[in-house]
Amino acid sequence: MALHKSDIVKKILGDRSLTPALKVASSFAPSNIALVKYWGKRNQAINLPLTSSLSISLGDKGTNTSITLSSMPHDEIILNNKSVNATTEFAKRLVNFLDCFRPQATYYKIETTSNIPIAAGLASSASGFAAIVKALDCFYAWNLSDTELSILSRMGSGSACRSIWNGFVEWQTGEREDGMDSHGVAIDTQWPGLCIGLLIFTEAEKSIGSSEAMQRTVDTSTLFKSWPTQVHTDLSAMKLALKHHDFELLGQTAEHNALSMHATMLSSWPPILYSNSDSFAAMQKVWQLRQSGIPVYFTEDAGPNLKLLFEKPQLSAIQAAFPKIQVVELFN
Amino acid sequence: MALHKSDIVKKILGDRSLTPALKVASSFAPSNIALVKYWGKRNQAINLPLTSSLSISLGDKGTNTSITLSSMPHDEIILNNKSVNATTEFAKRLVNFLDCFRPQATYYKIETTSNIPIAAGLASSASGFAAIVKALDCFYAWNLSDTELSILSRMGSGSACRSIWNGFVEWQTGEREDGMDSHGVAIDTQWPGLCIGLLIFTEAEKSIGSSEAMQRTVDTSTLFKSWPTQVHTDLSAMKLALKHHDFELLGQTAEHNALSMHATMLSSWPPILYSNSDSFAAMQKVWQLRQSGIPVYFTEDAGPNLKLLFEKPQLSAIQAAFPKIQVVELFN
Repeated sequence: MALHKSDIVKKILGDRSLTPALKVASSFAPSNIALVKYWGKRNQAINLPLTSSLSISLGDKGTNTSITLSSMPHDEIILNNKSVNATTEFAKRLVNFLDCFRPQATYYKIETTSNIPIAAGLASSASGFAAIVKALDCFYAWNLSDTELSILSRMGSGSACRSIWNGFVEWQTGEREDGMDSHGVAIDTQWPGLCIGLLIFTEAEKSIGSSEAMQRTVDTSTLFKSWPTQVHTDLSAMKLALKHHDFELLGQTAEHNALSMHATMLSSWPPILYSNSDSFAAMQKVWQLRQSGIPVYFTEDAGPNLKLLFEKPQLSAIQAAFPKIQVVELFN
Repeated sequence: MALHKSDIVKKILGDRSLTPALKVASSFAPSNIALVKYWGKRNQAINLPLTSSLSISLGDKGTNTSITLSSMPHDEIILNNKSVNATTEFAKRLVNFLDCFRPQATYYKIETTSNIPIAAGLASSASGFAAIVKALDCFYAWNLSDTELSILSRMGSGSACRSIWNGFVEWQTGEREDGMDSHGVAIDTQWPGLCIGLLIFTEAEKSIGSSEAMQRTVDTSTLFKSWPTQVHTDLSAMKLALKHHDFELLGQTAEHNALSMHATMLSSWPPILYSNSDSFAAMQKVWQLRQSGIPVYFTEDAGPNLKLLFEKPQLSAIQAAFPKIQVVELFN
């Protein structure tokens, strides 16, 4: 029998109370950037991935969400101080998720503020769903473990399960049908001086959502059949890079992995191309910088924006080459 | 024991004469555009491919080559009325090929004229090597079969083996180690009204030659492991498209195949990207035209130029969208 999100929620909450412990609860979750990407689901209902993935959280870049009860007969959603229409995909997805946590005739007022662009490949749904799960945990005083918060977040948006922690996080694919072993695991590695530079070319919505793009890739890309092998190799390399603080290996593995993910999309039908001319120009610039001896690599998600990976000593050279870059020092 | 080109040349020529039958011989061979691409070799010395491929020849777009004996103690090569320096890659490759057909102390004067851009992904090496093999056949009056000409051309440049014929040609990969079953086979299909539109953005040399790019892909792209499966599917679909004159199937198969080939390059390390901003802008325009109901598809080789596939009724719409397009009516 097919599992639903609500079955898993029941399993995790057990006999915990659905009576608010606070009038308002609010929580922050960081955005995260995958260095080894999550692409392709083995279960769409509860977001189980085909492969493991590995990310780095973006410190104070992310989403702050507060939750309280609504006095209206429906959920109220306020995103960056603007009321969101209930007919939008964003609202429908959030309401659908809240349905799993809704006592009868209970509606929520959700206020969410993101300091990163929404739906432009900067993983805002990841921080968004992680923040709301943390806020619910706080609102009802459930006191769930990080692992349980990660599983719940995963069902909102797959990569959200990595946004429960700071630093490096591995999302282990797991084997169970109910996904209870598919969640983030913090990696105990600090890397002072490691930087991510955000090159934001557009804050526009994606032309195609990542869930749909993922599914089209799984369904139509022949090359995707080799993707799990690639991820397997890249995860081993990335863990080695973290262990030895080998920046070249980290950068090369991340860039190769990201380009390979985009390659699987390009080989889908109809083809999926998230990059735009700004993305390609920036890639060329990164390759030129590397040729001139500056160790800098990029990664790219389901949107045209690039994220550069480099270490602190290269900061001024990178800023000179990309004046508009927004730099996040990851272990500051 | 590893086979060399000259072994195969001896096998094909047998006891044929190496005394010129003419003072000057000249031949034309058309360029060809693969609709199902050749990417990856199983033997680099004699250009044996990992998969079959399928192309369409470009009628009177191609290369004319004349051959005569040189009075100098070295080969003379004249390309588009300009003498080519012996130290260039182009000259070295040609001289190396001519070595297989050289009686002692014999040097050639080769004059070659191409009406398509050299080394910009318009397969000029294909028509070039096919033309020189045909010119040699004529010069020495060998009277080789088309299949034998195809095998010899293949050793100059893989895809040259398809430029021996007009119309649709399949290069069958073959199984033999000596490559005697790896050659073009003409496909008996006429398709009046089928057009190719050349979008030439640059006539500049490629940043990386296709042989090197191919080898890097084979060596470093994990996704490439699924490429033979993709080609297998695409070849079946393309033959069905030719049988039924199903243009949608032809276009979709060709575009999907080309993008998948470029995807294998993007997933190589270091990454290989032949497309430039003009290529991507044109792709977007093609996708927009399709969305507006105009059946047009593209293919792309080892260079940034695109080749559009469409039928005669769409000609004026295509010319309106791409004013600089050079249109070849393939069965005129």
